[in-house]
Amino acid sequence: VNLSELGEFALIERIVARLPEYRNDVWVGVGDDVAVLALDGDTCQLATCDIQVEGVHFQRKYTTSHQLGRKVAAINLSDIAAKGGTPEHFLISLALPGELDVRWVDGLYDGLREEASQYGADVVGGNVARIQGPVVVDVFLLGRVRREELLLRSGARQGDRVLVTGSLGEAAAGLALLGQEGAVVAEELLQAYLTPTPRVREGRAIAKRGVATSMIDLSDGLSSDIGHICEQSGVGARLWADLLPISDATRDVAELVGQPAVRWALEGGEDYELCLTVPLGQEEDLVAAVKEETGTELTCVGEIVGREAGRRIVLPDRSEGPLRSRGWDHFAAGVEGRATDAP
Amino acid sequence: VNLSELGEFALIERIVARLPEYRNDVWVGVGDDVAVLALDGDTCQLATCDIQVEGVHFQRKYTTSHQLGRKVAAINLSDIAAKGGTPEHFLISLALPGELDVRWVDGLYDGLREEASQYGADVVGGNVARIQGPVVVDVFLLGRVRREELLLRSGARQGDRVLVTGSLGEAAAGLALLGQEGAVVAEELLQAYLTPTPRVREGRAIAKRGVATSMIDLSDGLSSDIGHICEQSGVGARLWADLLPISDATRDVAELVGQPAVRWALEGGEDYELCLTVPLGQEEDLVAAVKEETGTELTCVGEIVGREAGRRIVLPDRSEGPLRSRGWDHFAAGVEGRATDAP
Repeated sequence: VNLSELGEFALIERIVARLPEYRNDVWVGVGDDVAVLALDGDTCQLATCDIQVEGVHFQRKYTTSHQLGRKVAAINLSDIAAKGGTPEHFLISLALPGELDVRWVDGLYDGLREEASQYGADVVGGNVARIQGPVVVDVFLLGRVRREELLLRSGARQGDRVLVTGSLGEAAAGLALLGQEGAVVAEELLQAYLTPTPRVREGRAIAKRGVATSMIDLSDGLSSDIGHICEQSGVGARLWADLLPISDATRDVAELVGQPAVRWALEGGEDYELCLTVPLGQEEDLVAAVKEETGTELTCVGEIVGREAGRRIVLPDRSEGPLRSRGWDHFAAGVEGRATDAP
Repeated sequence: VNLSELGEFALIERIVARLPEYRNDVWVGVGDDVAVLALDGDTCQLATCDIQVEGVHFQRKYTTSHQLGRKVAAINLSDIAAKGGTPEHFLISLALPGELDVRWVDGLYDGLREEASQYGADVVGGNVARIQGPVVVDVFLLGRVRREELLLRSGARQGDRVLVTGSLGEAAAGLALLGQEGAVVAEELLQAYLTPTPRVREGRAIAKRGVATSMIDLSDGLSSDIGHICEQSGVGARLWADLLPISDATRDVAELVGQPAVRWALEGGEDYELCLTVPLGQEEDLVAAVKEETGTELTCVGEIVGREAGRRIVLPDRSEGPLRSRGWDHFAAGVEGRATDAP
């Protein structure tokens, strides 16, 4: 069986099954985007990594290396944010073809450094190697969180509300615009795709209030990522399509290219917004507090239900259907709306 | 300027020059193989990564994925060992072609896990991505060390003795045997190259005795790696060729293929032995203690001299010459005795 046939998620399950029991200091291990490690005292170490491959995750003709540097930093910052953590130290591994211009590497590090420094993090190490093939950028980020503020995927309970930060589908809209010559260019959508904003401040603001029961960042798309919360928490979820926060610009582009904006919001991925669950009755105070502290909107998009109710989407006409969990599978062919398939 | 023209070490210098000042908690940053980060209390966090690229660092026809898993773990374990640290947590990033058989990945993780567990470390995270190109395996390793036991490259002083663990040149001898059909196969040399032994126990045994003034692991070759100690410590070094610990098997293979064994010992690289400096008069007790605790020999191979004396090698006929620092430069073409140039 080769990897294309097996698929990414089955591969990860297979890897997890082959690993031994962890020591006591490993609270969360392989299978989550972030490893959670108990340190001494009341602090947890957070460790995450994300590998980006030219031709799969990015194309040099559509992104500058500066934009790419910002984005790879943001992707990892977003993972730390989803645990309620503070990012601290980056390590960068690069596999680079020998013919690459050194200014490309300069731009990458400049972008990385700029994005990291916005959140108080440093680039402290890494290594470079030659490759006869595409550019590979692998970013590793360490962070910390107080144990009592740590948010996992596993705490959602029936009756909780599902909230998301910001708006959804913008990255997919930006991707749809990439390379569309002569199209109306909505700069903020291109930026949403090329240089997403990690919700580090929002993650901290949410975590320190202590009311959220679970959190994840939206890298694969809401329909897929809420599934991780459901699996880890042993619950189901019901989302309402007409509550999804979708900007006018995203709706305009969706109309332009003949795609349903709701689908981008659910399945587009790469929005790097946070999705969290909050007990019913406590969401309003949290929404107000996060808005006050960070300026960012939290929007209620659904509710947590019993596991037996499954994962459902309520359409605008009040009909319900199963929530398709079309996660971004790195080894599945033909997933639409991703850099792989950019024009 | 492209990367082949610039070279790896100039690239790293360029990267370092573009990074801002670190925060106070970063004791060692970019430019060393290991980042050293101050934690609370008397402990330092160690973080290292190493990226291995098919066709550059390994070839699938010469190494099984199980051997490769062991080796990539060992490379990172060796870096932590060189700081006197205890390895704890691995994260693994993989870029894999879709046509790769899943059993190859199984073997890689099995090898990684086996090697990690020998030293009490866990694989706690990582991620996988598709690549249209060579297999890329990037390994991150976190470790810890007590501040008072931390060994850096920067503490060597004039008059110190230079010691190494084990024997040198075995990996280069093993590499020379790879693919030599019909040659006398010395299994221990092949193993030295394909599955090197990281000196984690030796590193701890050395660190806790508190007499070593600096340490590094021999990944690029003694002549190059002692140079890092010299640069960071502001000293010179004089090595004696006829003190270099070279096994009979290595000498036999060197003779067989018409290469000088001393050159393999100095420049071959990938031995993953430790090189350390110890004040004159304290080396004998340390050698005995490490032998007693780990069974591993420490051999004195030279002395630290003033910076102005430079880096010298004393040949068996007592003539002296400059120590050529032919480090493994990932972007330089035609470096001999490396997997790149394996038959």
